[in-house]
Amino acid sequence: MNKAIVVRQDINISKAIVLLSGGLDSTTCLAIASSKFDEVHTISFDYGQKHRVELELAEYNSKKFGAKIHKIAKLDPTFFQNSSLTNKDIKVKKDYLTENSIPDSYVPARNTVFLSYALAYAESIQCSSIFIGVNSVDYSGYPDCRPEFIASYEKMANLAIKDAVEGKLRIKIETPLIDIAKSEIIKIGKSLGVDYSKTLSCYDPIEDKACGHCDSCLLRKNGFEQAGIKDETQYK
Amino acid sequence: MNKAIVVRQDINISKAIVLLSGGLDSTTCLAIASSKFDEVHTISFDYGQKHRVELELAEYNSKKFGAKIHKIAKLDPTFFQNSSLTNKDIKVKKDYLTENSIPDSYVPARNTVFLSYALAYAESIQCSSIFIGVNSVDYSGYPDCRPEFIASYEKMANLAIKDAVEGKLRIKIETPLIDIAKSEIIKIGKSLGVDYSKTLSCYDPIEDKACGHCDSCLLRKNGFEQAGIKDETQYK
Repeated sequence: MNKAIVVRQDINISKAIVLLSGGLDSTTCLAIASSKFDEVHTISFDYGQKHRVELELAEYNSKKFGAKIHKIAKLDPTFFQNSSLTNKDIKVKKDYLTENSIPDSYVPARNTVFLSYALAYAESIQCSSIFIGVNSVDYSGYPDCRPEFIASYEKMANLAIKDAVEGKLRIKIETPLIDIAKSEIIKIGKSLGVDYSKTLSCYDPIEDKACGHCDSCLLRKNGFEQAGIKDETQYK
Repeated sequence: MNKAIVVRQDINISKAIVLLSGGLDSTTCLAIASSKFDEVHTISFDYGQKHRVELELAEYNSKKFGAKIHKIAKLDPTFFQNSSLTNKDIKVKKDYLTENSIPDSYVPARNTVFLSYALAYAESIQCSSIFIGVNSVDYSGYPDCRPEFIASYEKMANLAIKDAVEGKLRIKIETPLIDIAKSEIIKIGKSLGVDYSKTLSCYDPIEDKACGHCDSCLLRKNGFEQAGIKDETQYK
């Protein structure tokens, strides 16, 4: 036996999980996590969304930012009904920023399900930091992007899993973008090397290009304008 | 047009969702829900468990108790690691009731993931009652079966979904079995017509029959003994 072989001690390797849709916010989150943690795992979801091209971009950015593993979980879309993002019969609204109500692009309990997969995986790989790119400034008003939801989820998570209850792991839901403007998010991402032409925020892409008119495209356009940074998004 | 056709008003139909593993507790929960609600939907999960035969029993009991829909969601088992229920390399412990610690049959964040699917589906079908057969008396000590976890989950759920935030739906996690002994659960189920020979609690069945020696089989056997009811479980 070769005595020179040294067993690698992984105990001090810092790990993070990033929920990665392939959009602007989650990709910026990945860039942040990858700048701070030794080992990053990304999770994306295929839930029958109209904008499935985002999964390819998630794969591209997972590689670019050195994620150790990129997992894609397939969800049964019949659990997530009545959303314009998944239901062909509900058209995604165009040129209209919903105010004082939650737009029909809302997907039932989406972030709860996403975080729950991340939680199971976090305990499986002994990782305490789960990144999610929620934002409650320039956003669509989804309830599961608000700080009070995140705080409540984190509390629940630490009552749910064995290693938290036994004091071995303390889950932290990391939301570095939650209270900053879209323009600031773009500046941070740019400084960390994000190529935003390789992200897709659009809810209703046409031939894999952004429509430029949905809720999410409008928020994104505004963000680039306010940041004074050229928007390299490929619009149809 | 036939004027005699009356549009059915579903508004007053009471609905419940039951998380149904096919075991003793969840089947009793189904019997309770179906005795109290007009319309019951059941959800089971295929997560690579060694005891997959429970899914067939879940299907049998969904039909027997008149569930409108029985959904089976397939989960990627690689998210749920290090459990003797899913990992072939970890043997299910036999003839040993773990005390003062959580046994290795624990599956990371299992009930959190199950409840999150139920939550998405609840908002999709406008149902406020989600039944889960957790018990914290004769149980394996899993953290996600405890009242404090359930209370925290319910709180989070009502911050997570649009219809709760807008005051249209208030999610209630129903746990009718949480604080009663296994023997009492069996008596309730019997009174509601449950045929326990058509349920499977075993974590490690042999040729689709209960092993009689795992944690879950031992708790079940004790329950029948204490209830003074004949245990019709088919043991190998």
